[in-house]
Amino acid sequence: MKITDIIEKKKKGLSLNEEEIKFFINGVMNGSIEDYQTSALLMAIYFKGMDTDETTLLTKYMVESGETLDLKDISDNIIDKHSTGGVGDKITLIFLPLIASAGLYSAKLSGRGLGHTGGTIDKLESIPNFRTNLSIKEFKEKVKEHKTAIAAQTLSLAPADGKLYALRDVTSTVDIIPLIASSVVSKKLASGANHIILDVKYGSGAFIKTTEEAEKLSNIMVEVGKRLNGNICAVISSMNQPLGRAIGNSVEIQEVIEFLKGNMEDDLREITYTLCFKALEKAGKYTLKEEAYKYLDELIYSGKALDKFKEIIISQGGNADIIQDYSKLPHSKIKYEVKSTKKGYVNNTDALKIAKACKNLGAGREKKSDLIDYSAGIYLSKKFTEAVNEGDTIAIIYTNKQESISESEKLILSAFEICENKPEPVNLIYKIID
Amino acid sequence: MKITDIIEKKKKGLSLNEEEIKFFINGVMNGSIEDYQTSALLMAIYFKGMDTDETTLLTKYMVESGETLDLKDISDNIIDKHSTGGVGDKITLIFLPLIASAGLYSAKLSGRGLGHTGGTIDKLESIPNFRTNLSIKEFKEKVKEHKTAIAAQTLSLAPADGKLYALRDVTSTVDIIPLIASSVVSKKLASGANHIILDVKYGSGAFIKTTEEAEKLSNIMVEVGKRLNGNICAVISSMNQPLGRAIGNSVEIQEVIEFLKGNMEDDLREITYTLCFKALEKAGKYTLKEEAYKYLDELIYSGKALDKFKEIIISQGGNADIIQDYSKLPHSKIKYEVKSTKKGYVNNTDALKIAKACKNLGAGREKKSDLIDYSAGIYLSKKFTEAVNEGDTIAIIYTNKQESISESEKLILSAFEICENKPEPVNLIYKIID
Repeated sequence: MKITDIIEKKKKGLSLNEEEIKFFINGVMNGSIEDYQTSALLMAIYFKGMDTDETTLLTKYMVESGETLDLKDISDNIIDKHSTGGVGDKITLIFLPLIASAGLYSAKLSGRGLGHTGGTIDKLESIPNFRTNLSIKEFKEKVKEHKTAIAAQTLSLAPADGKLYALRDVTSTVDIIPLIASSVVSKKLASGANHIILDVKYGSGAFIKTTEEAEKLSNIMVEVGKRLNGNICAVISSMNQPLGRAIGNSVEIQEVIEFLKGNMEDDLREITYTLCFKALEKAGKYTLKEEAYKYLDELIYSGKALDKFKEIIISQGGNADIIQDYSKLPHSKIKYEVKSTKKGYVNNTDALKIAKACKNLGAGREKKSDLIDYSAGIYLSKKFTEAVNEGDTIAIIYTNKQESISESEKLILSAFEICENKPEPVNLIYKIID
Repeated sequence: MKITDIIEKKKKGLSLNEEEIKFFINGVMNGSIEDYQTSALLMAIYFKGMDTDETTLLTKYMVESGETLDLKDISDNIIDKHSTGGVGDKITLIFLPLIASAGLYSAKLSGRGLGHTGGTIDKLESIPNFRTNLSIKEFKEKVKEHKTAIAAQTLSLAPADGKLYALRDVTSTVDIIPLIASSVVSKKLASGANHIILDVKYGSGAFIKTTEEAEKLSNIMVEVGKRLNGNICAVISSMNQPLGRAIGNSVEIQEVIEFLKGNMEDDLREITYTLCFKALEKAGKYTLKEEAYKYLDELIYSGKALDKFKEIIISQGGNADIIQDYSKLPHSKIKYEVKSTKKGYVNNTDALKIAKACKNLGAGREKKSDLIDYSAGIYLSKKFTEAVNEGDTIAIIYTNKQESISESEKLILSAFEICENKPEPVNLIYKIID
């Protein structure tokens, strides 16, 4: 078999068979296929696509390319939740203690993402002394004892995906739906959970811009996951505006705690409760949304979910005092208020512009080796549908980089769209694919 | 400027501008663009194409990527003839002495091609002691003295094309019309000729299969050549059946000599005279085809063209005795006659199958480092429209590899299509683009 024949076949729009996909993944892993051949194939896949059979096989061989985590000795029902990434997306940090307080098992291995703001691991690491570099043994013990744990992914899960992703990143071939699907699903299947809840975002702040693409991606992920014996569903929601009011790292941890204390932003509640209901449903606990939501409210207002979050922080070595005393979280030297130049109602807050402003303040990284300023971030004082007067503070900038303020302020002001009449509230959830 | 942005732009089907194409070629040359990025861009070009402006700019910067040969001190009118490659294609070796005997200047630098049979340089090297590794000084002196010379390309002409071609070869991106066009035209422009005659082949034995593609390629090459100040034309002809009767290296040299002695195969004459007429026309010598053909016949039948070939051989150190004594050319140990199993008329002799049979006998190379058996080859005893009886010899195999005969015989037999009624002769020339 020759890789050039496989490239030629895909160029012509034909489907690759199992032998060819296996040959490709093996060649990527053992180096017998050169990067320049892989990137040519990736570009051909961009133009000619992959059908569900091909995507399933690709996912299967990516899972088999490395280690897999076995959690069956803990429980037969272990949940994993994965977001395709958004701005102000702190939902994993609310979701995990919430379902753990409901008695469900979850295990979260997370990569240290690149992005405008930090990933889940970065946000957690803004809690003093919080340890995410757990050994597999520790990780499993903590899941067993506390129903959940969150660790930075150190195991070599689906390494073929890692190699392909590194190449896609530098060859303009990231935006290929079947490759995104097999990347996400292979990592989830390799990490040992058997109930997978996908939080698929579309819109300005997501890498997927339209509902059509989000639906296409979700359908493929759910179908591939099912064919490879995963119990999997996808919740598609809008990421045109940031989730919640805090965007950054330690500022998002504060918002997580506020949420668990019962001060829930509507948008965060809408997405989080939808995802939690899917988890409760999969675990056979609730079939009716209203009952599930009532139960989740009880877990919040009784303090049980917050207690669980505290338990997680302590279990992973963090300073749980932050729950009562936010001053123990990293704080920036500079706090700068952005004032509205217009009067009216907030009609939109462009997520991508806010994200760029946030990165500019020091909250994200460009390269894996870049350091994040955990204290940098933005707090949106005004959100969608809220009234605004000229001179009102619409956002607060937190940073240690004085020189970054002017540019970020410009971005924030251009992100806000102020209109005359109060806009109607909208639902964020577009569709659930099960 | 970033190469990923350039790839992204081409992915979306947009045209690249001068700055971007210059950046790309410079990056390929200085190594700042990685091969895997180049191959991704090449594949995007396969799907989205390049317009004439882009192809012209690509060609321009490929020419500028290396050395160029200046022949202006020899003459203002120097002809170069280039074939896109065919089976039994020995026309360059007839064309050059013929137009030189007509008093026209030509200068031929030729690469050592990969293919089922050797290239022009290999064919010449089957003449004992013939030197093709001329220095630039020698090459120019010989052109000045004998009106023509043929040398293996040692100068670094359009090296960017060489780098791109090497990558295209291993990433299934050879068949991209604008890249083929700029590859051919850049090499020709860099080699100093100002009248370029392109012999563009289509059909089973050519890498271009259809007249549509051949016409598209020819149109682009002629347009790009003109924009870059070349006087250029393209003759499109069929390569469904081998040209002449000899396919190989030393066997083709014999057929060249026979042609120059006046024993002209019709198909070889049709193409060669058409190309020579274009050369005479460009030099302002003839405008009427009939008169030019009459003149060419005179050059052949008077022995002037053959004398010129002898002069070239002597000038480049070869043994000119081969002209009268073919036994001084390399001969194979084995001569094997392939017999017809059918009675009728030859309706087709598939060029690709004959070429494969020939390579199998040792006449071609797979890698640049492979050695060619100059004596190996095939002679077609029967050709298109000729009558054949069962048991008649239809082809003669020359080889030193006994074990290759059975496979080659099978290929030859399957290449011959024998039909009941005598087929009508066909014109090989499809179109001339000027």
